[in-house]
Amino acid sequence: MIISLKPDASDHEKEKLFEQLHLLEHNCFYTGIYGQQSLVLSKSLNADELKAISASPAILKITPVNKEYKLASRTWKDSPTTFSVKGQCIGGKAINIIAGPCSVENESQIFQTAEYLHKLGIKFIRGGAYKPRTSPYSFQGLGKEGLRLIRKAADEFDLRVVTEVIDSSLIDEIYEYADILQVGSRNMQNFFFLKQLGKIDKPILLKRGMASKVEEWLNAAEYILSEGNGKIILCERGIKTFDNSMRNTMDIGAIPLVKHLSHLPVFADPSHGTGRRNMVGPMALAAIAAGADGIMIEIHPNPEKALSDGTQSLYLEQFKDLVEKMDKLAALSGRLTDNQVKIVTTQKTELCVE
Amino acid sequence: MIISLKPDASDHEKEKLFEQLHLLEHNCFYTGIYGQQSLVLSKSLNADELKAISASPAILKITPVNKEYKLASRTWKDSPTTFSVKGQCIGGKAINIIAGPCSVENESQIFQTAEYLHKLGIKFIRGGAYKPRTSPYSFQGLGKEGLRLIRKAADEFDLRVVTEVIDSSLIDEIYEYADILQVGSRNMQNFFFLKQLGKIDKPILLKRGMASKVEEWLNAAEYILSEGNGKIILCERGIKTFDNSMRNTMDIGAIPLVKHLSHLPVFADPSHGTGRRNMVGPMALAAIAAGADGIMIEIHPNPEKALSDGTQSLYLEQFKDLVEKMDKLAALSGRLTDNQVKIVTTQKTELCVE
Amino acid sequence: MIISLKPDASDHEKEKLFEQLHLLEHNCFYTGIYGQQSLVLSKSLNADELKAISASPAILKITPVNKEYKLASRTWKDSPTTFSVKGQCIGGKAINIIAGPCSVENESQIFQTAEYLHKLGIKFIRGGAYKPRTSPYSFQGLGKEGLRLIRKAADEFDLRVVTEVIDSSLIDEIYEYADILQVGSRNMQNFFFLKQLGKIDKPILLKRGMASKVEEWLNAAEYILSEGNGKIILCERGIKTFDNSMRNTMDIGAIPLVKHLSHLPVFADPSHGTGRRNMVGPMALAAIAAGADGIMIEIHPNPEKALSDGTQSLYLEQFKDLVEKMDKLAALSGRLTDNQVKIVTTQKTELCVE
Amino acid sequence: MIISLKPDASDHEKEKLFEQLHLLEHNCFYTGIYGQQSLVLSKSLNADELKAISASPAILKITPVNKEYKLASRTWKDSPTTFSVKGQCIGGKAINIIAGPCSVENESQIFQTAEYLHKLGIKFIRGGAYKPRTSPYSFQGLGKEGLRLIRKAADEFDLRVVTEVIDSSLIDEIYEYADILQVGSRNMQNFFFLKQLGKIDKPILLKRGMASKVEEWLNAAEYILSEGNGKIILCERGIKTFDNSMRNTMDIGAIPLVKHLSHLPVFADPSHGTGRRNMVGPMALAAIAAGADGIMIEIHPNPEKALSDGTQSLYLEQFKDLVEKMDKLAALSGRLTDNQVKIVTTQKTELCVE
Repeated sequence: MIISLKPDASDHEKEKLFEQLHLLEHNCFYTGIYGQQSLVLSKSLNADELKAISASPAILKITPVNKEYKLASRTWKDSPTTFSVKGQCIGGKAINIIAGPCSVENESQIFQTAEYLHKLGIKFIRGGAYKPRTSPYSFQGLGKEGLRLIRKAADEFDLRVVTEVIDSSLIDEIYEYADILQVGSRNMQNFFFLKQLGKIDKPILLKRGMASKVEEWLNAAEYILSEGNGKIILCERGIKTFDNSMRNTMDIGAIPLVKHLSHLPVFADPSHGTGRRNMVGPMALAAIAAGADGIMIEIHPNPEKALSDGTQSLYLEQFKDLVEKMDKLAALSGRLTDNQVKIVTTQKTELCVE
Repeated sequence: MIISLKPDASDHEKEKLFEQLHLLEHNCFYTGIYGQQSLVLSKSLNADELKAISASPAILKITPVNKEYKLASRTWKDSPTTFSVKGQCIGGKAINIIAGPCSVENESQIFQTAEYLHKLGIKFIRGGAYKPRTSPYSFQGLGKEGLRLIRKAADEFDLRVVTEVIDSSLIDEIYEYADILQVGSRNMQNFFFLKQLGKIDKPILLKRGMASKVEEWLNAAEYILSEGNGKIILCERGIKTFDNSMRNTMDIGAIPLVKHLSHLPVFADPSHGTGRRNMVGPMALAAIAAGADGIMIEIHPNPEKALSDGTQSLYLEQFKDLVEKMDKLAALSGRLTDNQVKIVTTQKTELCVE
Repeated sequence: MIISLKPDASDHEKEKLFEQLHLLEHNCFYTGIYGQQSLVLSKSLNADELKAISASPAILKITPVNKEYKLASRTWKDSPTTFSVKGQCIGGKAINIIAGPCSVENESQIFQTAEYLHKLGIKFIRGGAYKPRTSPYSFQGLGKEGLRLIRKAADEFDLRVVTEVIDSSLIDEIYEYADILQVGSRNMQNFFFLKQLGKIDKPILLKRGMASKVEEWLNAAEYILSEGNGKIILCERGIKTFDNSMRNTMDIGAIPLVKHLSHLPVFADPSHGTGRRNMVGPMALAAIAAGADGIMIEIHPNPEKALSDGTQSLYLEQFKDLVEKMDKLAALSGRLTDNQVKIVTTQKTELCVE
Repeated sequence: MIISLKPDASDHEKEKLFEQLHLLEHNCFYTGIYGQQSLVLSKSLNADELKAISASPAILKITPVNKEYKLASRTWKDSPTTFSVKGQCIGGKAINIIAGPCSVENESQIFQTAEYLHKLGIKFIRGGAYKPRTSPYSFQGLGKEGLRLIRKAADEFDLRVVTEVIDSSLIDEIYEYADILQVGSRNMQNFFFLKQLGKIDKPILLKRGMASKVEEWLNAAEYILSEGNGKIILCERGIKTFDNSMRNTMDIGAIPLVKHLSHLPVFADPSHGTGRRNMVGPMALAAIAAGADGIMIEIHPNPEKALSDGTQSLYLEQFKDLVEKMDKLAALSGRLTDNQVKIVTTQKTELCVE
């Protein structure tokens, strides 16, 4: 149950309400999000309680939400959430495209990639500086130097940086360099970490855990929302199943399901979802056809030499072809992709409401 | 390894070859398929054996296939397999649409559905007469009466019948009424049954087992192929995973993967794949975007009253809207859907090579 | 809901009851099982209906069962089901041991195995004559000749034969040679087939489907029960999960769960459950510790030469050691294993109530 | 490949060896563990390289390990790893028992539990102070106050404290209060965090990730080992599968498999593995029968009032009965449980080699 407060409620009115809820032994969580002050109750008020509470002049409306997640639900907020990242709208009419290498490897690699993206009109670059690798003996990323390089390349080619933060002790460092902070699958239920990400003001791209149900994923988003950060992108990236034909089984069905349950934008990562270069294109298109708001793809100027994820990285030319197909597909459902928004700068603001 | 025989090889030449292979202790399976006589060897000939065998005048060519399945592989046959069902081509340029109720319930229901499909230009109707139900106390289908009804409706409205055969003892009965015999998920590895289906001359729609890897699925097709029936449609219908948000997890990635590994046409069944009416549309479109050759959908004139699968059956009007969207999406990749082929009758034969 | 009928209810009384239920539009399934005539209703009677029906003099008692499966539930029958197979009790105090090769390969192999089992006091031999193999090009079993051989060996060494029936068309043939008919994982939801097995009077060993929930498994048993065959052994044999470290993931937890939900005996097959010879022993012991009523194990006089499943078959000596360990473990919970029952012949009948 | 160094190798000799490896472009990771200095190479030396390197006087022996994990493998270290926690040996002859509530809730609850454990002779108490909960609105644990309480109770009743550390920022705090630091399933692949735990000198109980293959689990342990902490307990706690009959599917087979692959002690947690009070006992026994070195169980003086995990917590009396059964089962394989070691204090040191 969510109690939305009036913007002009006085401190006295609010305090009295809290007191009332406290006397009724309701745990109540205060959040300011999407310009709205709210009290989240983990269990619903019963009829008598509801009657008593409703009288409070601090209350705008009371919304019962019969899911474990509350603020992430469409029951509470039905309009799609959109937000702007340096003038580029996420979750709006445009289908956002994020591309780049698995890891930042060196200056030449990341600049070559950035320049190519810029030419295609792409607005977001990805690249890992701290890499979660199965073995401690695999390449672990360039660390801070990687962050510096991708930031520099992005600044030169008007790109926004998406990069992963793999531990709470690194949040400050990543925050300094990134425009969007990615939370990887392995950290999706690292709740203490999520709470800290809820306190910052930059968007979080929250990948789905490899074995997380859709509801658990939305509960993870709820951790971030409940701390006040409403700029969340959910990203489907494949789940673990009995079938090991590919690196993961991409759960395309989760895309329309999450769109149905939540107001948050949903992206898809067909590179990790499949782990095979020749499957990335078909699955990117499938994700868009299913309603995805954005696509994240691994590309590399020289996949054979990649220090990680080479077999799932697209060649630059291949990516260009795919972008053309995505453009056409987006148009079918009255959308467009980032690269098509590039010229009409003035439209940008219309597309996005923060 | 597959040894393709010359069409004009003499019986003597062939017998001599068999004898040679037998002496080398190679199990060798003879199959006539796609107008080609072949010998399948479960393990490959070594270099010496290969040299000795190659000399046989009966041999057209020898194809090493490093998969457990042989005849189903693209290594052996790279061109997509197409075949015609009463003049309608499967696996060709057209994306085939099969629709109809989960179960045939009564004359009015199936005729109303058939008439609607006919108006939309759809060419295939589905409907179960023998239903595999989890509980013995659930509706088990009308049996033979159901077959009679769907056949009658199909004949009246120029439709082809797709219906499930759930046991080997029913093959003869279903054969009489159906144009395409469906094998359900629960029977996908009922190998004895598959062999019998390999001996008939009607197409088999082979649904993927709920817990079958892509390779196991292709091996199941191999059982049918190895007995001489090459008219197989593979149909993805969702797999079982830890996530029970929906009835099944639809493995859209299996579609491009199977297209990559095999020459057989691949369909998708988003109704069973999701189990939710509002997810069927997005997943049908996702399947087409990923390269599916056909879509099978459950529809019902009155889903609320359906005796089975009501919650996943589309309303007729809803189906109509979806067909329009599928038309547009098919066009994007230079394809069309069955209903668009209807007027240009002469094109049909061009599309399909049997 | 299950309506148990009085043994001495008159035909007239019964007919009147049927009529009443029919008028109330209740589907009602008649079954004679465990010496009790019963009517199973797929949905429960409401209070008014219950009142009306209760008056019938044909009724012994009415049991509400809030599970999809009814006759398989402990709600209906709380006492463990036991039955005798040629004097050997299943589901009683003794933990039954079934052992033998994956496939019957030749006379020497099966006789050598049978003799060894006999010496250890084992009472059940397994061996496949019709084998469900992933590839059509793998060894498919000796067929009828295999049945003949295992029967002959069993008869010579006082063993009971457990062998798989893979298709409904083979039931008559298997029935002739087997003492217990095994239904494999791939056929667990072949409902038409299950119904036919419900009509015979020999025990059915029903393996759990690779992707079947416990409830689906009990529903499969219900198909057999509802047709009148109450002699069912449930056999856990591993399920498919994301972890492919072993052939399957053995779901030991399903053993106590099924014992809790159902009165039917539960066995375990650690050979298929693990697929690795050195894991069979620990998992057989784990199954017994968890409450299994029997163990089925693959053994082979010469595993290296086995035509199928060699890597998971125990050497004969290894099996002997394991039997000793199982003996001790069984004793801990006040049970014993078949081989320990051998001398005290008279006890047998006490152990088993048919 | 692991290069073990001689204890008395000079700095000069070692430096020269590093240099040689560096020139050959081998990544080489230095670790001091189990009293042995080692160099781990992520890829193996080829024959020429091996010959060149072998000449180094710093080398004791070179062990090829054909797994991704190296130090965790039995190939490198075949003898079981044992270590003492305040005089109590882990991984030795005794099967260790850890018990306690899911969360520390208040002084009375944790003292009542501790006292009961002490009376039974149990040596380890568990209890969470920081809880990873699916929803942000669920009880998150008492935090530092919880740590203080469990420490106090443990000290009073001669118990060792096992408690979870859920984020790298909390390591120092937990280290102060705990004797064994638990890493939860959701953090098993939080590699940055694992590395930090590899730098401390207290044992780590590493729960298996809900969707982690055995090999991934051992790789996670490798992260800790590679930083120098060899005191690791692996704990199986159930995985996610399609079957949601219970909270998780307990992978008992992983226990003998890990024992086979690794020298590290393996525990089992049947409470999370099943999520049902009446399944905890059978699964604890199954785990021991399968070879587990320890059992971790949730108990509560008043499960109905528990703030978390009440339905899977044993009543104290129930736990006592289970301990008796575990005692008998341990004895079968020549082991004993912690509570049986209590009197013979002098034996303790014999059991454990640090």
